[in-house]
Amino acid sequence: MIVQKDEIEQFEKHYRTAFVNSLAGFRQAVLVGTLSAEGKTNLAIFNSLIHLGANPALFGLISRPDSVPRDTLQNILDTKEYTLNYVRADQFEKAHQTSARYEKGISEFEKAGFTPVFLSNCHAPFVKNAIVKIAMKFEQSIPIPLNGTILISGSVQQVEIDASLVGPDGYIALSEAEVLISHGLDAYFVSKPIGRLPYAKP
Amino acid sequence: MIVQKDEIEQFEKHYRTAFVNSLAGFRQAVLVGTLSAEGKTNLAIFNSLIHLGANPALFGLISRPDSVPRDTLQNILDTKEYTLNYVRADQFEKAHQTSARYEKGISEFEKAGFTPVFLSNCHAPFVKNAIVKIAMKFEQSIPIPLNGTILISGSVQQVEIDASLVGPDGYIALSEAEVLISHGLDAYFVSKPIGRLPYAKP
Repeated sequence: MIVQKDEIEQFEKHYRTAFVNSLAGFRQAVLVGTLSAEGKTNLAIFNSLIHLGANPALFGLISRPDSVPRDTLQNILDTKEYTLNYVRADQFEKAHQTSARYEKGISEFEKAGFTPVFLSNCHAPFVKNAIVKIAMKFEQSIPIPLNGTILISGSVQQVEIDASLVGPDGYIALSEAEVLISHGLDAYFVSKPIGRLPYAKP
Repeated sequence: MIVQKDEIEQFEKHYRTAFVNSLAGFRQAVLVGTLSAEGKTNLAIFNSLIHLGANPALFGLISRPDSVPRDTLQNILDTKEYTLNYVRADQFEKAHQTSARYEKGISEFEKAGFTPVFLSNCHAPFVKNAIVKIAMKFEQSIPIPLNGTILISGSVQQVEIDASLVGPDGYIALSEAEVLISHGLDAYFVSKPIGRLPYAKP
């Protein structure tokens, strides 16, 4: 089937959201941990993690000012610190539950059943037993004028990971740890390896 | 293991690139098709596709001015049109080969073994037999001053996909078509479903 731009615009709202979100393909499921200015913990699932650069190590997140994780955005702007946590695929129901619109001041850690842990050098909470725990420092908020979304850019400050997952070449074998990946708004997956390839030459 | 920011900065260059890229997790493997101002076809694999919004449907790509797919960036800026193509996992070797640094004017379609096809309303080439073919219109180039990368934003103009993959709620079951996903610089995967969940409520 061929779908034109004006047909997408005329789709029923929920159908369109599901169609366009799933059209964007597979992505990493990330639980973003923050602390509010009042010191309350917050946790929200994102599927918009972007690699911006390796030297320095910079990652981005897309946030809509009116979206569910708006507490996350405010907390990052207030405290300049946040954490990125990847969990095992068997945690998918708990991870999804962090997307519910809880009132401000209610911690998604408690409601979804995750335990916050704190590591030195970072005030924001991490997810206990996460496969990957990354401490981030907020760097810059880049507006995307087209639709009012914001690219939150930050630098990697600290990484906690099982050493057995890191190969001799620096590659982190997340698939071996059955890390949770997401597709669309509500579908969850694990990865099954096909292969690794050498640097491509003409 | 815990790795600090200054340790990452002191990693050997290739080790650091592999470490930070794979740290960013799983993402969609996308073949970006373009036409040069001289009319030559170009194809390059990207792993930085971002969903920016569903209404209008806007997607982003991260490009480094000095990276391999720089011909892609130039072609998009010159012609304002490009295509996004998702292929089956069994095409991973050909998909990876498009990342080789071919000289300008040499088509990665031919060298990697993909067949270009053209659809009405779009001058940029698509990948024949791709599971998903998206015609994009360039909208805006957003500089990321932190490290000189660019967020290429574009609007979805047309989507070609097998109708059997689109569910009654608009969700596109890419996993059923064994779509290729990527991790890090050189690792390829397919997805294995865990489950879909209803809209999360407090």
